[in-house]
Amino acid sequence: MRRLRMGMIGGGPGAFIGPIHRIAAELDRDIELVAGVFSSDAGRSQVAGAAYRIDPVRAYATVADMIAAETARPDGIDFVTIASPNHHHLSAARAALAAGIAVLSDKPATATLAEAHELAALVAAADVPYGLTYTYSGYPLVREARARVAAGALGTLRRIVVEYPQGWLATGARGKQAEWRVDPARAGDGGCIADIGVHALHLAEFVSGLRVERLLADLAAVVPGRSLDDDCQVLLRFTGGVRGTLIASQIMLGERNALRLRIYGTDGALDWRQESPNALTLHHADGRTEILRAGDGGLSADAVAASRTPGGHPEGYLEAFANLYRDFARQLRGEPGSLVPGIADGLRGMAFIDTAVRASRADAGWVALEI
Amino acid sequence: MRRLRMGMIGGGPGAFIGPIHRIAAELDRDIELVAGVFSSDAGRSQVAGAAYRIDPVRAYATVADMIAAETARPDGIDFVTIASPNHHHLSAARAALAAGIAVLSDKPATATLAEAHELAALVAAADVPYGLTYTYSGYPLVREARARVAAGALGTLRRIVVEYPQGWLATGARGKQAEWRVDPARAGDGGCIADIGVHALHLAEFVSGLRVERLLADLAAVVPGRSLDDDCQVLLRFTGGVRGTLIASQIMLGERNALRLRIYGTDGALDWRQESPNALTLHHADGRTEILRAGDGGLSADAVAASRTPGGHPEGYLEAFANLYRDFARQLRGEPGSLVPGIADGLRGMAFIDTAVRASRADAGWVALEI
Amino acid sequence: MRRLRMGMIGGGPGAFIGPIHRIAAELDRDIELVAGVFSSDAGRSQVAGAAYRIDPVRAYATVADMIAAETARPDGIDFVTIASPNHHHLSAARAALAAGIAVLSDKPATATLAEAHELAALVAAADVPYGLTYTYSGYPLVREARARVAAGALGTLRRIVVEYPQGWLATGARGKQAEWRVDPARAGDGGCIADIGVHALHLAEFVSGLRVERLLADLAAVVPGRSLDDDCQVLLRFTGGVRGTLIASQIMLGERNALRLRIYGTDGALDWRQESPNALTLHHADGRTEILRAGDGGLSADAVAASRTPGGHPEGYLEAFANLYRDFARQLRGEPGSLVPGIADGLRGMAFIDTAVRASRADAGWVALEI
Amino acid sequence: MRRLRMGMIGGGPGAFIGPIHRIAAELDRDIELVAGVFSSDAGRSQVAGAAYRIDPVRAYATVADMIAAETARPDGIDFVTIASPNHHHLSAARAALAAGIAVLSDKPATATLAEAHELAALVAAADVPYGLTYTYSGYPLVREARARVAAGALGTLRRIVVEYPQGWLATGARGKQAEWRVDPARAGDGGCIADIGVHALHLAEFVSGLRVERLLADLAAVVPGRSLDDDCQVLLRFTGGVRGTLIASQIMLGERNALRLRIYGTDGALDWRQESPNALTLHHADGRTEILRAGDGGLSADAVAASRTPGGHPEGYLEAFANLYRDFARQLRGEPGSLVPGIADGLRGMAFIDTAVRASRADAGWVALEI
Repeated sequence: MRRLRMGMIGGGPGAFIGPIHRIAAELDRDIELVAGVFSSDAGRSQVAGAAYRIDPVRAYATVADMIAAETARPDGIDFVTIASPNHHHLSAARAALAAGIAVLSDKPATATLAEAHELAALVAAADVPYGLTYTYSGYPLVREARARVAAGALGTLRRIVVEYPQGWLATGARGKQAEWRVDPARAGDGGCIADIGVHALHLAEFVSGLRVERLLADLAAVVPGRSLDDDCQVLLRFTGGVRGTLIASQIMLGERNALRLRIYGTDGALDWRQESPNALTLHHADGRTEILRAGDGGLSADAVAASRTPGGHPEGYLEAFANLYRDFARQLRGEPGSLVPGIADGLRGMAFIDTAVRASRADAGWVALEI
Repeated sequence: MRRLRMGMIGGGPGAFIGPIHRIAAELDRDIELVAGVFSSDAGRSQVAGAAYRIDPVRAYATVADMIAAETARPDGIDFVTIASPNHHHLSAARAALAAGIAVLSDKPATATLAEAHELAALVAAADVPYGLTYTYSGYPLVREARARVAAGALGTLRRIVVEYPQGWLATGARGKQAEWRVDPARAGDGGCIADIGVHALHLAEFVSGLRVERLLADLAAVVPGRSLDDDCQVLLRFTGGVRGTLIASQIMLGERNALRLRIYGTDGALDWRQESPNALTLHHADGRTEILRAGDGGLSADAVAASRTPGGHPEGYLEAFANLYRDFARQLRGEPGSLVPGIADGLRGMAFIDTAVRASRADAGWVALEI
Repeated sequence: MRRLRMGMIGGGPGAFIGPIHRIAAELDRDIELVAGVFSSDAGRSQVAGAAYRIDPVRAYATVADMIAAETARPDGIDFVTIASPNHHHLSAARAALAAGIAVLSDKPATATLAEAHELAALVAAADVPYGLTYTYSGYPLVREARARVAAGALGTLRRIVVEYPQGWLATGARGKQAEWRVDPARAGDGGCIADIGVHALHLAEFVSGLRVERLLADLAAVVPGRSLDDDCQVLLRFTGGVRGTLIASQIMLGERNALRLRIYGTDGALDWRQESPNALTLHHADGRTEILRAGDGGLSADAVAASRTPGGHPEGYLEAFANLYRDFARQLRGEPGSLVPGIADGLRGMAFIDTAVRASRADAGWVALEI
Repeated sequence: MRRLRMGMIGGGPGAFIGPIHRIAAELDRDIELVAGVFSSDAGRSQVAGAAYRIDPVRAYATVADMIAAETARPDGIDFVTIASPNHHHLSAARAALAAGIAVLSDKPATATLAEAHELAALVAAADVPYGLTYTYSGYPLVREARARVAAGALGTLRRIVVEYPQGWLATGARGKQAEWRVDPARAGDGGCIADIGVHALHLAEFVSGLRVERLLADLAAVVPGRSLDDDCQVLLRFTGGVRGTLIASQIMLGERNALRLRIYGTDGALDWRQESPNALTLHHADGRTEILRAGDGGLSADAVAASRTPGGHPEGYLEAFANLYRDFARQLRGEPGSLVPGIADGLRGMAFIDTAVRASRADAGWVALEI
């Protein structure tokens, strides 16, 4: 069985996320990066291609070039991975889907909700898979948490708190990664809410199996001169009226990437922290507190499948990311078992951003999250 | 210099908080419990008095009895401590103040905002101190945090998150302590918000030096059949527009008493957790993370004064509580340096409860917190 | 039932441990400090007595004075607590025991093993209790750990690691507390091994229920110019050949009081840390890791009895200390249930110090720990 | 610049370490697995080769076959990685070196000290690099720790504690990984000491820059019926008389892979734990405690080079392992900057095992660690 062939869009010089995608994609040796449009500048795309050690003729200047050339090759790419800023997502995905090439995309799905609707229609009409890299859903213990909730270990859910504190934009946007994220022309209408708020939303829904039905958003641009939100708090109501809080911020100085999810039910509760991803705290109704560790025996099939090392050998962000690639490869091969998010999650994330941004600006109180 | 003489109101058989008050009051040997109305039942008051080893004639059946008898004694009480359910707070304080006896009271100050206004007038007219036991403000590292913020270590404050998760009321109110807290006749209009939400509010204001000016409250009674709120989330705006989140809940199964405060500024941030009270995390603008420990050298005068043991010898809740008693004793003696909250804090707490309860019921959106 | 009356020996101005003893003794209102020889200097003893608020006539200049005066009073002391440096322990205990007054003493029991033998004979001949304040055995979760081991929760024990890192003597002895501890004339033959090594030994034996039968000691004075050991490592064999390691050091810069005990058996393991005393980690044979919290339901009777607050309200060093005083009070009243260590533990501790010091000096390899 | 071509020896079906080596080797896309002798059984080697997706003709039955065939190819392997049990290490390395093929080997270098001497001579005579995968030296914060010590941040070193608790062999050896480790015919004379004790030794020496000069070993086989040691404690003297303790155990039930290193100096101290590898605790002489995080700014060049993600995105065991492969690739290309251990470390590790095993059996007390 041959390795799947991947073309990357974005991820060129200075990009944080490109090399991450490359490592994650190839970690299990089931996927190979063979082509790319690493930059909208042809020369820079060549430089990046050389750094990735791909054949120079397959480091393209435009997405159209790549699609045309790769579809003409007998060993052309099986899918594209989109790692460019948000405003490129739709056009890149459109081009690939139109050529019958599968798409795995960075979140959020697009730059605007309108674009997401268009993309959803394109995906629905296509015959190939579309996936979204909500990375944190790839952690073994996130999948364990999801399996436990689904199995009823927490009883009826009552309360969810998801928070995502970062501090790297507390002091002005420095560097390429920061700059596009605070620029509405490239990031879209959402700043922090689109960059990390959607991660928090997805994680909460992924693990709880519930959906946010209503929300009350309070977003602000705290750093002087910034036009997009950098600090968000959102009150939530999930399916069945389950109460929730979502906090996402990029001005919490000193915080790195402190995504944390707590879910409380009638019979148990769980607590997971991204910066210590190999532990999952469970509270039981009888008062016992238990700590699960990734790689241990006794975990669910989903968690076991998502670990590559035994307990005590820490796995991290790259391995979680690789689990999404592995899932996507399964989809491409028509195998079952993928947990990678799809266009429905993408549309939902865009609706969340759009709803939260507009509701916050209008001070609209509680509003429905539709879709 | 003789020990100050204390009379206790409440704290009888089955009460959690009575023995705590007794230990805290006497910890530094500067105060002595000599009298009490430990129960509204005379026999039970006698039993409690014997357990506390006080003179049987000073275990009274009513507050009026105690005030009358103690004021007639040459060695009568110097102050009362009020440890009874909320609906008794006003009448007890009124009786003491009317007799010129100082009052140290459990929070919240009263059962309703109207009562708090009445009490504030009584305190203003009295010649004796009135204090409130917002216990958590007595921890050495809470005082250190306050001192650092006041000294500008965090720069301009931007964002505050205070949370107070508990789980003990997740499964129905069992026992004396739980029962009155979920009964509007004894607790007042606020459940969780009045029991622990005010602690969170006070801690945030005490450390930050800011005041909540506006809030948006989302309170609910999650456990079926409960009439008072048991789960609260409140969006905040502090002085100068500083953004805040307050979460308080008593249905977060598995949580004990996980009060936590985070404050983020332009130049630093801090993080304190009540269940590990002897550590304070500081984030500096240059990226360094520092851990302070109670009892260490180099702390502020307020923190040093609040510790009784060297670093590494854990102090806890009782010692924090004792720090409030020590402060109150200073006030009684006319000495400076007390950090014990007073009636202004009490009135403010009641306004917070009242505003949050009413705004949540009315789904009123953002409302002002006056007083 | 009246409060027991305590006389303190030592604990005068500048002493760390005197006020600690006073607080611990009086915490439960079952004991009262009424007299003392707080310093060998009469004037300083008076000053200390005033600070403790005791009757000036009961602040004595010598132990003999106190014993004579107190035995002549109808309300004389019931016991003495010895909080002076090690070289005073024997003479103070001898004087009290000779007068039929019970003794609670700081560890180690005496300054030398020969003194300990003499003291053991005196205690055996006396009609009153003798106790030793191995403080750490007073923590609720230490008692829980002991109860679990005794109930077989760990199966057959196999391996014990006890460590006690401190750093306060890393940079020369500053202050009264440090000075006598590094002076052989006042501390005896052991430095770190006598100051904290015996705590580690006692904790390991108290929880495991085993006894050290053989040891191999490697002690050294690391700080230049110091004559007593300040860094110790000791290999152990407990009853039945169970293997152990004991590390105690006062030159581990940055460590405060990081006493930690781990015990591993065939069916489980436990891990307790003094600086986070309210948590106890249990490893089960089926791979589960469980965290117990002081104050929780479901703990053993010994642990429940040793807690004064519900879960989540941290108790610390002072409360652990108070548990020893409470136990000792029970003994004085002839009540059962005391876990306070006695002269056998004292003699054993001195044998451990003596054996370790001599074996280390002689590079003697494995030696027996007799007594 | 082409990718380096790797042949693997060992790592076939059921092996834990084979896939780990493959992922680590290829993580940075600078090395490619192209050949292997994955099992001494030809059929199993084929199966493994297929799982690794290598060309079937390059899945060999014997090392000799692989060396012969690969040296004959224009695109033959650049180096072998040895991931087989210890008793195969020497013969595999000998065959590769004889053919001028570089070797990267699992630790320990060989099964016996005599073999290590032979190997050292072969390496000395060869023109190609030889490296050893002491994985834990690849963690960014281990390299940070090393850089800080080298820069004098801790002052003069005084005390080292390194411990490596595992529990997976507490209950009998189950599975392929366990079986050979407890079998002297395959593992050599050392059990736990050879499997993980050498990791602990290497880590301590790597970070401290010191060398163990003398040791006192206490090794035992605790699990009934086992002939090789499974629980080790070793007292150490490093260069200059610096005192140390090394604990390694595989019968500490409930422990996964809790390698931890503490180093104390006159001016500072550090503490690192493998199971939370992205944090490094530093104690400063002025009492401050600081927490460093991998991926943060301000770290040493070595630490920065060893991270692939920004702070807060956890990296783990696989990435640490990949850092060793990256270093080894540098050596193969003649580039500077490699920190991968070499034959000197390998010989030293074997001397440590041999010395500790023999000294413990003979109860020899302190002995020199030569080489």
